[in-house]
Amino acid sequence: MKAPIDFFFDFSSPYSYIANEWVDAVAARTSRRVRRHAILLGATFQAAELKPPVAHPIKREYVLRDFARSARFEGLPYQPPPVFPIPTQNAARLFWWLAETRGDEAAAAWALAGLRAVFTRGVPLHEPDALKALAAEQGLDPAAAEAVWSDVAWKARLKRANDEAVAAGVFGAPFFIVDGEPFWGNDRRPQIERWLASGPF
Amino acid sequence: MKAPIDFFFDFSSPYSYIANEWVDAVAARTSRRVRRHAILLGATFQAAELKPPVAHPIKREYVLRDFARSARFEGLPYQPPPVFPIPTQNAARLFWWLAETRGDEAAAAWALAGLRAVFTRGVPLHEPDALKALAAEQGLDPAAAEAVWSDVAWKARLKRANDEAVAAGVFGAPFFIVDGEPFWGNDRRPQIERWLASGPF
Repeated sequence: MKAPIDFFFDFSSPYSYIANEWVDAVAARTSRRVRRHAILLGATFQAAELKPPVAHPIKREYVLRDFARSARFEGLPYQPPPVFPIPTQNAARLFWWLAETRGDEAAAAWALAGLRAVFTRGVPLHEPDALKALAAEQGLDPAAAEAVWSDVAWKARLKRANDEAVAAGVFGAPFFIVDGEPFWGNDRRPQIERWLASGPF
Repeated sequence: MKAPIDFFFDFSSPYSYIANEWVDAVAARTSRRVRRHAILLGATFQAAELKPPVAHPIKREYVLRDFARSARFEGLPYQPPPVFPIPTQNAARLFWWLAETRGDEAAAAWALAGLRAVFTRGVPLHEPDALKALAAEQGLDPAAAEAVWSDVAWKARLKRANDEAVAAGVFGAPFFIVDGEPFWGNDRRPQIERWLASGPF
C-alpha cells in the first residue's frame, strides 16, 4: 500500500481551492489516497515569521491577478471573494469533526463544498449564518454545526492540526507531503505528478 | 513584430538560474525575443516590504531543498553556493554595461555565464577577484570590468533598472512580463508557454 498524499489547506486560500480540484484525480492515477488537513494559515505564517502575500504592497496586486489566472489555467470557475482573507477556524473545526466522526470522505466533501463556496460564490464562511447555511446545504444540522465549532474539544483538534503542520515544516498552503517529500504551492503540480509517476528525482 | 518577453533576474537567484536556461527556447518557439533585466532583489524586496525566502525560519529549509529539486526537474546541474545569498551589484553593473555598449546578446551571454558560475560551480561573484576571473573567462578585460562596476554611471544604470522594475510591479525574480501580463517565478513556465502559444487566457 503506497503512502497517502498529505494535503494541507486553508478554506481562505485560493491556491488551495485550485489544488483541491485536481489532487484526487492525480492521486487516483497512481493509486494513492489523499489525506486532507484543514489548517489555519495564520498559525503557519506566525511560525515562519511570514505575512499573507496580500499584506505586501505591489505583491498584493500580482497575487490577486494570479489567483484568477491560475484558476482559468486549470479551467476552473473563480470569483474573487468580497472579503479576503477571512478567518476560517469554524469551517476548519467542522472539517475535523467530520473527519473524526464520519471519516475522510465526509471531511473531503466538506472541504470541497467550503472551498467552492468561498471562491465561486463569494460565501463569507467567517459569518456564522453563512456557515450554518452551507452546513445545511451539505445535509448537516446547523445547530449541531454551531455547537461543534464552539466546542473546546474541536478547537483543540484544530490547534493540534496546526501544531502538527508546523512541526512537519508546513509554512503555507496548499502544501503537500508525499513519501516525506514536501511540495509547497499549487504550482508544484508538475513535480508532484512526476514524483507519483516515477518516484524521487 | 511580437513584443519581447521582459525577463527580470538577479545573479543570486536560483530560480532565475533555472528560468534563464529555458526562456530563450520557449521564446524562440513563438518568435519572441527575450529582453533581460539584471536587477537587485534587495531593491524589489524593500519596495514590497518582503524578505528573502531564506530569511524565514522553516521556509528556509524548504526552499533550499526546492532549489535543487526544481533544477533536477528541469534536468539542470545545480550546486548550492557556499555563500547564499550574495550581493550581486557588480555583476549586474557589468550586465548593463554590456547591454548598452555591446548589445543584448553580449549581455545575455554574461547573464548565462554568471548564473551558471554561481549555481553550478559555487563561484563567489561578490568577491572582486572571482568576478574579474569570470570576466576574463568571458573575454573581457578584468581591469576594465572593475572600472565599470566602480563607475557612478553604471551604478546609476543599475539603480534605474531597479527603479523601473519596481515601477513595473516586479517584487521577486525571476519575473516575466509578456504583452503587459506579469508572471512571477520559474514555476509560471506552463502559464507563460500557454500565453505565448495561444494568447491571453
